Amino acid sequence: MKDTLSIGPRRRFWGWGNTADELSVAEQQSVNSTLARLGASAAGVSSPQESDVSLRPSRGAPPATLQAILSGSHYDRLTHSYGKSFADLLRMWQRAVPNPPDWVAFPQDEQGVVDVLDWASRSNVAVIPFGGGTSVCGGVEPAVGDSYTATVSLDLQLLNRVLEIDPISRSARIQAGAFGPDLEAQLKSHGLTMRHYPQSFQFSTLGGWIATRAGGHYATLATHIDDMVQSTRTVTPAGILQTRRLPASGAGPAPDRLIIGSEGTCGVITEAWMRLQTRPRFRASASVTFTDMQRAVACVRMLAQSGLYPTNCRLLDADEVANFHIGDGRSPTLMLGFESADHTVRESMRRALELVAECGGIYDVAAVEASMANDSGIGAGVGARSGAAGEWRDTFIRMPYLRDPMLGRGAILDTFETAVTWDKFDAFYAGVKEGIHRAIKRATGNPGMVSCRFTHVYPDGAAPYFTFAALGSAKADLDQSLAAWCEIKRAANDLVISLGGTSTHHHAVGRDHRSGYEVESAPLFLSALAAAKSALDPHGVMNPGVLIDPLGRKIGLSGVLVR
Amino acid sequence: MKDTLSIGPRRRFWGWGNTADELSVAEQQSVNSTLARLGASAAGVSSPQESDVSLRPSRGAPPATLQAILSGSHYDRLTHSYGKSFADLLRMWQRAVPNPPDWVAFPQDEQGVVDVLDWASRSNVAVIPFGGGTSVCGGVEPAVGDSYTATVSLDLQLLNRVLEIDPISRSARIQAGAFGPDLEAQLKSHGLTMRHYPQSFQFSTLGGWIATRAGGHYATLATHIDDMVQSTRTVTPAGILQTRRLPASGAGPAPDRLIIGSEGTCGVITEAWMRLQTRPRFRASASVTFTDMQRAVACVRMLAQSGLYPTNCRLLDADEVANFHIGDGRSPTLMLGFESADHTVRESMRRALELVAECGGIYDVAAVEASMANDSGIGAGVGARSGAAGEWRDTFIRMPYLRDPMLGRGAILDTFETAVTWDKFDAFYAGVKEGIHRAIKRATGNPGMVSCRFTHVYPDGAAPYFTFAALGSAKADLDQSLAAWCEIKRAANDLVISLGGTSTHHHAVGRDHRSGYEVESAPLFLSALAAAKSALDPHGVMNPGVLIDPLGRKIGLSGVLVR
Repeated sequence: MKDTLSIGPRRRFWGWGNTADELSVAEQQSVNSTLARLGASAAGVSSPQESDVSLRPSRGAPPATLQAILSGSHYDRLTHSYGKSFADLLRMWQRAVPNPPDWVAFPQDEQGVVDVLDWASRSNVAVIPFGGGTSVCGGVEPAVGDSYTATVSLDLQLLNRVLEIDPISRSARIQAGAFGPDLEAQLKSHGLTMRHYPQSFQFSTLGGWIATRAGGHYATLATHIDDMVQSTRTVTPAGILQTRRLPASGAGPAPDRLIIGSEGTCGVITEAWMRLQTRPRFRASASVTFTDMQRAVACVRMLAQSGLYPTNCRLLDADEVANFHIGDGRSPTLMLGFESADHTVRESMRRALELVAECGGIYDVAAVEASMANDSGIGAGVGARSGAAGEWRDTFIRMPYLRDPMLGRGAILDTFETAVTWDKFDAFYAGVKEGIHRAIKRATGNPGMVSCRFTHVYPDGAAPYFTFAALGSAKADLDQSLAAWCEIKRAANDLVISLGGTSTHHHAVGRDHRSGYEVESAPLFLSALAAAKSALDPHGVMNPGVLIDPLGRKIGLSGVLVR
Repeated sequence: MKDTLSIGPRRRFWGWGNTADELSVAEQQSVNSTLARLGASAAGVSSPQESDVSLRPSRGAPPATLQAILSGSHYDRLTHSYGKSFADLLRMWQRAVPNPPDWVAFPQDEQGVVDVLDWASRSNVAVIPFGGGTSVCGGVEPAVGDSYTATVSLDLQLLNRVLEIDPISRSARIQAGAFGPDLEAQLKSHGLTMRHYPQSFQFSTLGGWIATRAGGHYATLATHIDDMVQSTRTVTPAGILQTRRLPASGAGPAPDRLIIGSEGTCGVITEAWMRLQTRPRFRASASVTFTDMQRAVACVRMLAQSGLYPTNCRLLDADEVANFHIGDGRSPTLMLGFESADHTVRESMRRALELVAECGGIYDVAAVEASMANDSGIGAGVGARSGAAGEWRDTFIRMPYLRDPMLGRGAILDTFETAVTWDKFDAFYAGVKEGIHRAIKRATGNPGMVSCRFTHVYPDGAAPYFTFAALGSAKADLDQSLAAWCEIKRAANDLVISLGGTSTHHHAVGRDHRSGYEVESAPLFLSALAAAKSALDPHGVMNPGVLIDPLGRKIGLSGVLVR
């Protein structure tokens, strides 16, 4: 008998991706070299097996009518117990799963979602909406305290179809459970693409992107999912909230903006009309190095304010290029790119490189020229796929895989991201790097590695993304690793807020960023949000403890991060 | 003794602009010719004098502490009794002001706003926030029913300063009561501009733009005020709601999006950090004619989806060019323009004109070339200020002035606007024009004039703006005019919604668009919004009857439009 109602490849419950995915030899070497650099012990904890983890018996008595879509299997409960944050995976390595969902629901249609929410509201069952489960901030963990009779993780993966295409307005109605590759495959036959590529693209869903205000791969213009949403459909405990399909409106506060970023606390997004594009045919790319970070930042600011809207404008600091072996491995490097489905981007690149040169940036003229070789726009532009930008993209997609085996050896690897206005940036960048080194030192005894890149740039600021690595425990003691991570993570939360940033630019708030979110948010806005939530979720069953506490219950901040 | 606490030029209470503003001879001729075309009677009602209108005595007893900032003068009450919609002005011509504000508050600082709201919440006084008072949808009218002890119009005009400039992030902290020209003048010395030019620019304020989700003059990219807001500060009856200053964030539903479009129902916006730009130096413009509207629309759609982002992309239909004597006065005409502060826009225009030619658009090559004459970017680009685009802009800014004298002669002149996805556009355009002609015929006995232009274009749709003119009463009977207008306006509200549009793209909902707003909005969103409002305005004193009804009171739809 099948042990899951899930479809598709079997997922690795203690790591990234599918159980069948393996590291390449080169990747394994890179892992070993990082571990050696951190001074990790040769011995470690062996990766967990499903049978290593025992789960408490399922609580609650779901009605018979839900039997066909509810699973209480070990595998389904296990794979829905955590997201994919460092702390999530480490707790799996620890074989510690105190709060598994009692049930995992796999509704086959919207009515199934309605039925689950009806049962939950009636029976005081907490509902945790689950897209791809790639949350890195405690967004899908059923840790809801003692005041619910049971928890159900609501997995949308069977709602995975593109339902309708409007080629004239370049839009599609898409079910929320569609994973990135599946969604793009369904659009491709119509010559359209959504072009939203978060790092989790392969394993995350449209509904998850909307619920968490995901940021895509591209640096400017419509890259946040917010700007691609034309309308949303959300099943709430109070009924269905369907917004109107419009290119724009000035009628009252924007309804979709209440849903976008609600992180499952108001209801379950079941479908959305999304804005699409045609595939780019023209490309240009340049890899630019700078002698120092300050000039590089000034250059990126000029580009962000130029109105040229580069598709890529990814600045890696010296530590980032060193740690990830990008380019010369030494100099701050800007991956600059332009793409268009309609017209040559040669002139945009020419002007951008003028600005780059003004700031002392150095690039290979022939390589830039080669990237624009396909200037006729016939066939795919292959130029941009080579060089440092290409190296970078490959590294980027595979990065989460490399983290997995390091955990069992006592290493800490994590990232955090934010956004801050340009006026504060230099002090912010220096302060965060220094502060994280200090926190790592305090937590582990050595300063570890901290690097930074820009994921998105705006005329008024940037979204810096920090990666840190440290040896949490020289003896691969995972309790020690987790304690050290908590200390560093708390420092990161505090630093980004105290230095003027936001608690998250595109990873969402979940449970892990609530301490920062509560400082950055206007208390009255949180009151208004709680009131809006209680109108949609009167019994407070939707994703309790994420973003805000449901009224009348005190879930508190994330268990793992509580001081 | 001064009869007003207001500063600046004396405003015309029964029309647009200042009392000192006069029509030019040419404008007067244009008014006469339109009136003749409509068949208006030569005699009419004379324009009202302040002393013609009697106001009921002020109710309520404001505390002595507010005395310095509260006015009960005839002029102040009169100029705060209505906005500038057709119905507003017509009721002034009728000398009919049944609901003047009892008091007009002119706070000198934020504390003054807090004090007024404290008094209002304590004493059950309805507060109507008032920026420039140019609402064309009943947004500032103190018609709040019988359940309040008094009404106070809260005029922000003394909060008119740019408080802080951040040249690095190109942003400024600006008080909400700053009028367009004043705000731009204060920014100009820093080499910056907000470049937000609604038609009401001269007489509307930053706070009004934010509260009503104003649309600017430009066709693409950051033209809605929504995208220019970096953070807001709002005095609510429950306290001050200050959002964090950030270039972007993914932390929960966007807080500013609850404030933007709230139309004074949650509180009074007192200041905002706004995103700025440097002034454009490079310009290119083209005036393109088409043989038929359908091909013109297809062309605009291609341009909107091209990723070229024209600054202007203003398509006028054949009736619009005929009625406003634009271009050849006959062919659908597209005002196409590109502007940049950083780089030549020659290549963008070249590609746009390729697309135009594909769609059969005709333009004067020499005129386009002349518009780009200043391609060095030194000095202001003057090219774009000439030709059809120039004619159009002048007409545009002066348009509201021309309406005024026609009212007293029994004419009806009004506009409404919406947004709709491209797939629905052709049927929408035909349906609205036909439907409005029918409504005018029903209401007045003849079909009147209806024309359309695009104000904004999006990859997934357009924002059509309709203008209509009719003879409401051949005998200049203003009661008859108003009744006819109500019938046409109701038809317009119904048509835009039933054919798939939104109740407003940039004029706001106010009272006059509530019937459409309530159809287009998800009932659950309205519940959530009402709940959020009641958290911020627990006594329901903020702008009652606009957008939504305060909980527990039934203000109903606009008095003037109620069936």
